[in-house]
Amino acid sequence: MAKGKINVSVENIFPLIKKFLYSDHEIFLRELISNATDATLKLKHLTSIGEAKVEYGNPMIEIKVDKEGKKLHIIDQGIGMTEEEVKNYINQVAFSGAEEFLNKYEDGAKDTGIIGHFGLGFYSAFMVADKVEIITKSYKDEPAAHWSCDGSPNFTLKKGKKEDRGSEIILHIADDSTEFLEDNRINELLNKYNKFMPIPIKFGMRTETLPKPEDAKEEDAAPTQEVDNIVNNPNPAWTKQPTDLKDEDYKGFYRELYPMQFEEPLFHIHLNVDYPFNLTGILYFPKLTQDLNQQKDRIQLYQNQVFVTDNVEGIVPEFLTMLRGVIDSPDIPLNVSRSYLQADGAVKKISSYITRKVADKLNSLFKNNREDFEAKWNDIKIVIEYGMLSEDKFFEKADNFALYPAVDGSFYTFEELQEKIKDNQTDKDDKLVILYASDKEAQHSYIEAAKGKGYEVLLMDSPIVGHLMQKLETSKEKVSFARVDADHLDNLIKKEDTQISKLSDEEKEKLKADLESTIENKSYTVQLEAMDSDASPFIITEPEFMRRMKEMQQTGGGGMFGMGNMPEMYNLIVNTNHELVGEILNTKTTKKKERLINQSLDLARLSKGLLKGEELTEFIKRSYEMVK
Amino acid sequence: MAKGKINVSVENIFPLIKKFLYSDHEIFLRELISNATDATLKLKHLTSIGEAKVEYGNPMIEIKVDKEGKKLHIIDQGIGMTEEEVKNYINQVAFSGAEEFLNKYEDGAKDTGIIGHFGLGFYSAFMVADKVEIITKSYKDEPAAHWSCDGSPNFTLKKGKKEDRGSEIILHIADDSTEFLEDNRINELLNKYNKFMPIPIKFGMRTETLPKPEDAKEEDAAPTQEVDNIVNNPNPAWTKQPTDLKDEDYKGFYRELYPMQFEEPLFHIHLNVDYPFNLTGILYFPKLTQDLNQQKDRIQLYQNQVFVTDNVEGIVPEFLTMLRGVIDSPDIPLNVSRSYLQADGAVKKISSYITRKVADKLNSLFKNNREDFEAKWNDIKIVIEYGMLSEDKFFEKADNFALYPAVDGSFYTFEELQEKIKDNQTDKDDKLVILYASDKEAQHSYIEAAKGKGYEVLLMDSPIVGHLMQKLETSKEKVSFARVDADHLDNLIKKEDTQISKLSDEEKEKLKADLESTIENKSYTVQLEAMDSDASPFIITEPEFMRRMKEMQQTGGGGMFGMGNMPEMYNLIVNTNHELVGEILNTKTTKKKERLINQSLDLARLSKGLLKGEELTEFIKRSYEMVK
Repeated sequence: MAKGKINVSVENIFPLIKKFLYSDHEIFLRELISNATDATLKLKHLTSIGEAKVEYGNPMIEIKVDKEGKKLHIIDQGIGMTEEEVKNYINQVAFSGAEEFLNKYEDGAKDTGIIGHFGLGFYSAFMVADKVEIITKSYKDEPAAHWSCDGSPNFTLKKGKKEDRGSEIILHIADDSTEFLEDNRINELLNKYNKFMPIPIKFGMRTETLPKPEDAKEEDAAPTQEVDNIVNNPNPAWTKQPTDLKDEDYKGFYRELYPMQFEEPLFHIHLNVDYPFNLTGILYFPKLTQDLNQQKDRIQLYQNQVFVTDNVEGIVPEFLTMLRGVIDSPDIPLNVSRSYLQADGAVKKISSYITRKVADKLNSLFKNNREDFEAKWNDIKIVIEYGMLSEDKFFEKADNFALYPAVDGSFYTFEELQEKIKDNQTDKDDKLVILYASDKEAQHSYIEAAKGKGYEVLLMDSPIVGHLMQKLETSKEKVSFARVDADHLDNLIKKEDTQISKLSDEEKEKLKADLESTIENKSYTVQLEAMDSDASPFIITEPEFMRRMKEMQQTGGGGMFGMGNMPEMYNLIVNTNHELVGEILNTKTTKKKERLINQSLDLARLSKGLLKGEELTEFIKRSYEMVK
Repeated sequence: MAKGKINVSVENIFPLIKKFLYSDHEIFLRELISNATDATLKLKHLTSIGEAKVEYGNPMIEIKVDKEGKKLHIIDQGIGMTEEEVKNYINQVAFSGAEEFLNKYEDGAKDTGIIGHFGLGFYSAFMVADKVEIITKSYKDEPAAHWSCDGSPNFTLKKGKKEDRGSEIILHIADDSTEFLEDNRINELLNKYNKFMPIPIKFGMRTETLPKPEDAKEEDAAPTQEVDNIVNNPNPAWTKQPTDLKDEDYKGFYRELYPMQFEEPLFHIHLNVDYPFNLTGILYFPKLTQDLNQQKDRIQLYQNQVFVTDNVEGIVPEFLTMLRGVIDSPDIPLNVSRSYLQADGAVKKISSYITRKVADKLNSLFKNNREDFEAKWNDIKIVIEYGMLSEDKFFEKADNFALYPAVDGSFYTFEELQEKIKDNQTDKDDKLVILYASDKEAQHSYIEAAKGKGYEVLLMDSPIVGHLMQKLETSKEKVSFARVDADHLDNLIKKEDTQISKLSDEEKEKLKADLESTIENKSYTVQLEAMDSDASPFIITEPEFMRRMKEMQQTGGGGMFGMGNMPEMYNLIVNTNHELVGEILNTKTTKKKERLINQSLDLARLSKGLLKGEELTEFIKRSYEMVK
């Protein structure tokens, strides 16, 4: 039996690094700036513990494009490397200096914000460069080193000429990557990945207007000067303590995140936890528009202030992906599948922490300023209702602040609603019937009729409301929802007292026969009811169960299979106590009787939005005749 | 100056491979089965050229799960390896045996379908296994070899006991990966990645019913036998020649691809090209539903029959991502960014080849069976219209087959339409005015009026139709579109002849004053027109330009900035030649005049769908009174 060690040759690995290290080549800049940041943060730590006897100062990272020379420079003023360190850290692929540093300085270094992990980042330079140089001078009193490699993978290492501390990486950009010699492209990358990194990043110069000297004349131009153009904000709001921030600061940070967004956020939630996982961030509730899919993927994920992704699927519960803002956590595993993410213990905890914080914030907003919360309800309800449907814990908490708006503009919690309507809207089987409309305009006449009986009518108009009602009906006791046009009101809320009909049973039978023989459309089932004499003579209703199942199927994920394709079925309720109905019964000429029935049916259909197209055109023509 | 070679140590690389080789660990099975396939295809090639003097037979690849022993076996009957070959190919990370094979056998081997490239696939086993064994026997007359490695990265290599040719890989599944010991999970992976790989894959056994022997009695149960369960189809339709396939075969393959899809595809396009790039595939036009976003990402991308992804963004033009089917091409670079893909020359050619093939297919369908093409138009128009908008080349080709449906159900090409309407619908400035409706029901009375003048009315009801009309108006000469309710018909198509008004100028002035003082709603601009006496007395119109801009803004990417929020503005056209209008003018009592005007306005609003909510309820109440 032979024993041995698996071999890996740099000649085989290098081509793979060039092609496949990251699927997106543009990542190289993020990686090199992360290294520069680490070099600076290491120096900060060593000066703070007195190990480096140099002035930390105000270091920055500079990016320079040399378009003619086809070079890109990344220059830091950090810890630098001695020749020996270059040999150790650079000439060995995948040996992580950052890891070694963290191990060496253990406790104290834990909070330095150092990013590096796997020692591969530097090699990403070869994805875009033919040749890479490093000119570096350590904070220690040693000469500078100059390393250079054409990716062959041979390198040369000699003394360097650099006088000041830090490292300069020079990328000789390859012919297929010249996009990275364009200022615009570099600006775009800096803005995407490095906008909030903790060390100032300088890219180019900009002109600043100075105040005029006191003795300047009015016509003198204000003096200007060239200043460093710092492209990042090293201290973004989420890294600060909530107590140090005013409402205006949160709004300002929102504009920083979404410069193209003109609308202000409704409110924010500051996340800040360091045990059992480390997470900071700020989430914003935006005003949502109709297209819910467009709202997603606006939360940005960072790790130690380095942008990672704007896809937080699996990290943030689905219903909160409509929010905006930033989450920064070093504890979220990257580069793993979604199913792995969802099974990961730390991620599960993070997800439920975020859910809890959102629920707490909503609760405190409701408690502290109910008026303001009600004003915002329409913009936030879809998130809350979706959360109630998808997360049971959120459903429980939401019972305290979820609102049920009435058609007249007032708002109730579920408990308040129950209290308000229980006397008038409990039926004879002791069930509380909650009436609602989905469209104030289209269901106007039905709403008016319900109001006439002193009933409260809710306005439930979000797309998932059918699912929410279903959930409420099963989780609350003896509660049912019914749309105002689901049946005649006395049937929707059945009480002990029965109305007396003006018509005898014989008359009713005759009336029904007349109606059924005249009405040709077979989707209307005629139903005689003894109602108030000033209620409408004809009313069309649509049974709740069937309609809701159909609607739930259309919005997806519910209802009963096959219901979506069932034809619409309506009831035609005829008020036997209305004067006009009496007239229909007593009319002798068939033609006049038919005209009365058809015109009344048309008006009832108009009220329910069912009179359309040719039938409507005919109706209007007839009506013009009647106007004259 | 020092020179040297960059170093890479297997101790550093191995942990990276375990964690990061693929972002999705499940890929390991695809990689190992790809290797097994390559081993089999290599043997096929060597026997075919006579270099291997063995029987190729009917080799298969077997997958076995040993749940108790926590092992997963992948067994092939391919070329196998000698001890020497194991040392060369396995003990060296990222050394590709496939590449070497292809280089060695050059021309002849090009079409073998061998998959491997980078020699990394095997190591993906360590993403899910603590320990990996290889037991392998070469087709050459040498003893089997048995390699084993616990990922430390130390290995042992000894003689093996295997008698039959081929390789067996044994994965000792790690504790965090026990999902890969579940039959269901393995089935799922085989179905996702290996469904159409070229060598039969066996996973488990299944029971098959045999025909009854001739002397069997009726009550005897039919005999059964256990047979190998082959989970893949090694010869999927797209690898065959179009001439060898019937329509039924294409439909059958559609069901293979989308077993949960009950609706049949409308038609298919077989792609087959080998120069200047290699691409095969079959695309299907499905019946599209309303939610266009749900339609995307149904095209599957393969390379040499190995599933790669179902995201073909950047490869297939955007408007064709709503199609379904399969594309197989080894020439599409993987693992690159979208921007790189779009700039890649080969991908550009592939994309325009696909566009051309789709256009050609549509053209031939139109030519060969126009009736059938018309019947399918409603289901395919959104793809075609979107393509016309987004790809200029497609726009040109589509001129031959894009259809414009009329409200009565007939279809025209643009040229036919032009021919049909040019005499009657060319205005006095020589411009062809194409009338359309967006909703047959809602615009019924307007459509009827246009028909009354002998005008043809198109039904243009897809969501992007505003953009399409805009494009047609700018690319065709002297053509404009107008919705039937955009203005009074004599204004929409202005001709030389003027109608004579029954009213004098004085009477008109008085009428206008009466109307304006009665009508409270300021969004209606009163406009007197001398129309036919049997046209409607009152008509509400909505100017084309404004309405179209607003609609285009709503569907995104067009219109004029800010238009979306402009209030709706209408014209109230009053027909001075209508009897009722004469009556209004001559009515003496103000109250009666107001009643006539308001009831007429309500009817006109009803006709345009503008009478809603409380106003409609009031109108209906008044109308019930009038019925009596």
